[in-house]
Amino acid sequence: MSANFSRRLAAEALGTSLLLAAVVGSGIMAERLSGGNVALALLANTLATGAALIALILSLGPVSGAHFNPAVTLAAAWQRDLPWREVPGYIVMQALGAFAGVAAAHLMFGEPLFSASTKVRAGVPQLFSEFVATFGLLAVILGCSRRRAESVPYAVAAYIVAAYWFTASTSFANPAVTLARAATDSFAGIRPADAPGFVLAQLIGACCATVLFRWLAPAPPRNEPVRS
Amino acid sequence: MSANFSRRLAAEALGTSLLLAAVVGSGIMAERLSGGNVALALLANTLATGAALIALILSLGPVSGAHFNPAVTLAAAWQRDLPWREVPGYIVMQALGAFAGVAAAHLMFGEPLFSASTKVRAGVPQLFSEFVATFGLLAVILGCSRRRAESVPYAVAAYIVAAYWFTASTSFANPAVTLARAATDSFAGIRPADAPGFVLAQLIGACCATVLFRWLAPAPPRNEPVRS
Amino acid sequence: MSANFSRRLAAEALGTSLLLAAVVGSGIMAERLSGGNVALALLANTLATGAALIALILSLGPVSGAHFNPAVTLAAAWQRDLPWREVPGYIVMQALGAFAGVAAAHLMFGEPLFSASTKVRAGVPQLFSEFVATFGLLAVILGCSRRRAESVPYAVAAYIVAAYWFTASTSFANPAVTLARAATDSFAGIRPADAPGFVLAQLIGACCATVLFRWLAPAPPRNEPVRS
Amino acid sequence: MSANFSRRLAAEALGTSLLLAAVVGSGIMAERLSGGNVALALLANTLATGAALIALILSLGPVSGAHFNPAVTLAAAWQRDLPWREVPGYIVMQALGAFAGVAAAHLMFGEPLFSASTKVRAGVPQLFSEFVATFGLLAVILGCSRRRAESVPYAVAAYIVAAYWFTASTSFANPAVTLARAATDSFAGIRPADAPGFVLAQLIGACCATVLFRWLAPAPPRNEPVRS
Repeated sequence: MSANFSRRLAAEALGTSLLLAAVVGSGIMAERLSGGNVALALLANTLATGAALIALILSLGPVSGAHFNPAVTLAAAWQRDLPWREVPGYIVMQALGAFAGVAAAHLMFGEPLFSASTKVRAGVPQLFSEFVATFGLLAVILGCSRRRAESVPYAVAAYIVAAYWFTASTSFANPAVTLARAATDSFAGIRPADAPGFVLAQLIGACCATVLFRWLAPAPPRNEPVRS
Repeated sequence: MSANFSRRLAAEALGTSLLLAAVVGSGIMAERLSGGNVALALLANTLATGAALIALILSLGPVSGAHFNPAVTLAAAWQRDLPWREVPGYIVMQALGAFAGVAAAHLMFGEPLFSASTKVRAGVPQLFSEFVATFGLLAVILGCSRRRAESVPYAVAAYIVAAYWFTASTSFANPAVTLARAATDSFAGIRPADAPGFVLAQLIGACCATVLFRWLAPAPPRNEPVRS
Repeated sequence: MSANFSRRLAAEALGTSLLLAAVVGSGIMAERLSGGNVALALLANTLATGAALIALILSLGPVSGAHFNPAVTLAAAWQRDLPWREVPGYIVMQALGAFAGVAAAHLMFGEPLFSASTKVRAGVPQLFSEFVATFGLLAVILGCSRRRAESVPYAVAAYIVAAYWFTASTSFANPAVTLARAATDSFAGIRPADAPGFVLAQLIGACCATVLFRWLAPAPPRNEPVRS
Repeated sequence: MSANFSRRLAAEALGTSLLLAAVVGSGIMAERLSGGNVALALLANTLATGAALIALILSLGPVSGAHFNPAVTLAAAWQRDLPWREVPGYIVMQALGAFAGVAAAHLMFGEPLFSASTKVRAGVPQLFSEFVATFGLLAVILGCSRRRAESVPYAVAAYIVAAYWFTASTSFANPAVTLARAATDSFAGIRPADAPGFVLAQLIGACCATVLFRWLAPAPPRNEPVRS
């Protein structure tokens, strides 16, 4: 394991943990302040998540590619933008970072480190939402990353801002995020029993987008990996 | 029909469908969560639409120009940025994509695939609003696309965010979007009987903007099409 | 009068008119939808104004510099970025455009073309607010325009978004805008009797910022005018 | 003291004062208009603060680096991006500017120039929040500034927008801002007794981020200071 790879793993863990802290922490803050106005709470949660994505992808993108998402890592490997042997390390660090971020959010708000969510997110519309959400996320990343790599932070953040509102599931679109959000009984939570369905729908969505974009926006020939 | 043209058609259909999913889906979500607070619902709808436009134009612009709008396609052909023979294909795919996007939004929220809107949007102020909305949209696109093409995604999204609020019609500004929004009986809908007037006002507005900008910001001489 | 100058005058009139349509129109829409929730109405008004500024400065900046504001035009002439002989034309077109924009907003919302505002905006805090608002606006423009000219649209829009909230007057910061907003008896209005004080405070603020930035961020030596 | 250093000191004072005027002024405006809806008030305060940061860092960054924050100045000196002998001047001007900004905001809203805050912000969750907030801020700055310096204004603003919501303390993350906000008995205030703990937590957070990023994103070899 080269020093360079260690750095990239640390960046994935750090970025995913700050992303989860932002998603879960802003959900708790929004729920506490909004007095039951769910639209207002989701608006604040949306703003915080989108802004965190811009900041984190801009600052850690140059180190690790700023995936923060196993579905993105798998698609990158499929596209030969990341060696397959690095995929397990990326995914493990994303998952660890995600749980650490949930714990950090809970600490900041004086809650227990982890608590199983009781929020039901089940049914075909929810699963179809996660399929669409992750399909769209990968479409945006694959569409931008080869031609307008410097726009990826803004495109991803903008997409997630929209998808929080246009999907019925508020767009988790990320297996690591999904697992970690099962460990918070707050605004952003998901019942552990509902998480596997979400993850499956996400992986199918990512897969479809990758197949489509291999045809729609093929990679130019090159000798070395390109990263966002 | 070249492979390249197929890709561009697919990008127009995909982009327009995700745009409509965002407009209609976020409208349904906003209506459900906002408890009758229309200003809050429109704020969420605005944010989701603007963010979706940034993400979609950034990621599909390099493929097809990211028109997603027959009025933009017609103006592009008039400006010789697109061959006239490609216009029918673009418009058909935009319309098909738009209806597919409405259906996808309905599926995600557990609604019937299509439902005729009952939302009245009639009268001179509404029609004048659509004239202004589309005139302004084309002014923004024509003003940016030759001198600051990389800014088009942000300029278009920002314009639509503003126009959702400063026009009495909430700025449809797009014939394909207008037809498809007649097929959703939700926040973003428009009564089918009111759609033709909207489309006509939009085309007149686009036409006026194109005439004005041929004088105001003439194209530099060139040999090949320029795309946003 | 060169064709080039005509184009620039048209761009100033068009841009200022769309800016006023955005400010006044979104104020009317926000007031109608927000059911008396003034914070929500101002939030929508802020978003629409900031977004309109991004779109309009991006698209018309390459034509005329996108001043849309006599205070900016005067500062530009003082900084030798615009010949003094062009100043009267710029200001007249900005004022005409501003009133046309108010009329357009009223037409879109089915209101009389013009109506004198009855909104009292008087007293030292209001005047000091306009001084600060315009000082800050010019500081932002003068700070960016020589070193980061491509950022001016975003910097100006971001500044106005902030200033809508951090000044007690909601930051008019523009003499043409102030006069035209005296002609709308709606959310964005100002009583005609209060307009002259606002304009005076704005000009003093702009003057102080220009003096300060001639020292703080001096222009590099050059032979021809630079425009934002 | 060179003329150049004077200019940079003036830019730090001016920028920090406008930043505080934005934070405190928008807090007062939001509290007055929101009728007790704290989520809505914080949303407006967040938007104004983030927008002010974009405008001020874009316009003053080229002059002084736009630190506006003693923690950032100390980290810059540690990273050899600023000579240590310039640090005291930077910090003094930031503190003076911060208090001047609070006074300006109070003047604009017709309040006494200064007033001790009575807002309690104490306890471990608050202190841990400030640690995380400042750690994250420095991570974002250090991650961006060497590889994507032109993105720093957007990254910093986006980070603070998120952190206003995901930390329990609403993310002061700045010792000069903390001291000055003790002098306003309004929405953005902090009880003077709670300020030292905040400052200590901020400095520890900044320190940890700097240590981490010296390994994670080391500086390329160079001969002269780099500034954002």
